[in-house]
Amino acid sequence: MKVLITSGGTTEPIDDVRGISNFATGALGKLTAEYFLRAGHEVILLSGDKALRPEPQERLTLVPIMGTQSLYEAMQDVVPQVDVVVHSMAVSDYRPVYMTDFEHLPDELTEASLTTFRPKREKKISSKADFQIMLLEKTPKIINAVKQWNPDVLLFGFKLLSGVTPERLLKIAHEKLSQTKADFIIANDLENIQGQAHQAYLVSEKDADRVISMKNKSEIAATILKKSEELRHD
Amino acid sequence: MKVLITSGGTTEPIDDVRGISNFATGALGKLTAEYFLRAGHEVILLSGDKALRPEPQERLTLVPIMGTQSLYEAMQDVVPQVDVVVHSMAVSDYRPVYMTDFEHLPDELTEASLTTFRPKREKKISSKADFQIMLLEKTPKIINAVKQWNPDVLLFGFKLLSGVTPERLLKIAHEKLSQTKADFIIANDLENIQGQAHQAYLVSEKDADRVISMKNKSEIAATILKKSEELRHD
Repeated sequence: MKVLITSGGTTEPIDDVRGISNFATGALGKLTAEYFLRAGHEVILLSGDKALRPEPQERLTLVPIMGTQSLYEAMQDVVPQVDVVVHSMAVSDYRPVYMTDFEHLPDELTEASLTTFRPKREKKISSKADFQIMLLEKTPKIINAVKQWNPDVLLFGFKLLSGVTPERLLKIAHEKLSQTKADFIIANDLENIQGQAHQAYLVSEKDADRVISMKNKSEIAATILKKSEELRHD
Repeated sequence: MKVLITSGGTTEPIDDVRGISNFATGALGKLTAEYFLRAGHEVILLSGDKALRPEPQERLTLVPIMGTQSLYEAMQDVVPQVDVVVHSMAVSDYRPVYMTDFEHLPDELTEASLTTFRPKREKKISSKADFQIMLLEKTPKIINAVKQWNPDVLLFGFKLLSGVTPERLLKIAHEKLSQTKADFIIANDLENIQGQAHQAYLVSEKDADRVISMKNKSEIAATILKKSEELRHD
């Protein structure tokens, strides 16, 4: 079968020299790609600039990704061609609209004036002022479009939280299942990820009561491969 | 001689999963380190998380750096022990103080209310609101402290601008010379850097009228090594 995996983190530029990056290393995406490749499947890996990647090899296509916009366009293109999507990339929820000092902000500061203000973009923001204000806008939730682009695709989404109870993590994972129409959500908490040790839960609509608990990256990759092979036979 | 080189970019955290990164690859710092090592000198390389680095070898100490605070502490420690400092790292001019949506901002928005507000830091910022506001504060200019930590050190600083005339670039480089008390400033423009091709100017107080023009990374690294060997004989 043909599998699209996204991994690593996106980077949204602030100016020509700096940007907002998500910290994911791409380790899980790399491992998952290796599991599918070893089982004889074809993998297209979209991954952040600095993400870990498998060695170049037959049946593996590597596509570097910078920001949410380039990820959106690449996925729109690739999702209709694949059987499975494993969307493990840490995608920016927000991207910078502007960053400027108080001197250049509108005289009257209100929610309306701050959100509609569009200063001329500096190539490199000057470092004179003591403070800067940045406005950020929400990026499109790319995962919500996957089933629209390809209703037959098997979709694995991820939910990462930090420092919550397992109950809350599972509740939010179930909400994400229905929002995204994903077949599976892999729910995990940053505080339970350390190198290979990686506590995660696989939840799905079909087995609402049955949650598969996994304790390291190899187990997560193996579970994704197993579920894909059970549910997709092409 | 003993040389401290800083390279790559710093990353300042916003929350547990994202931060503001400077885009430098560390290619020039890696090459400069290799030139000094090949000439028999000792190198301590402080470099950003994802920066390019020479292969581990004798006489090379590698220290990974995250944010400006860890860079400050590491340099304070190392600068008194070295003969030469090549400070090529792209250091964040600003670091995030908070990022929050309008609902959580003070009712009255003024420069004073926005700069003194300190909301509780979220471990992972929720992605519900359409917009977020971030306050950023200036980071200490580490290069200004180098000659205080070690008045005898030979200091190479860098000034990177984007899309300015050579005249303006040289003028600002001269201003930086006197602000930082650096012996040399290497001035460059992002629009004239592409892979190995790297237009740069070496300026110094001693030869105010004489600017050395360099056209690629090897020439920059060789010039830094040559000047260091001329001016430091230990």
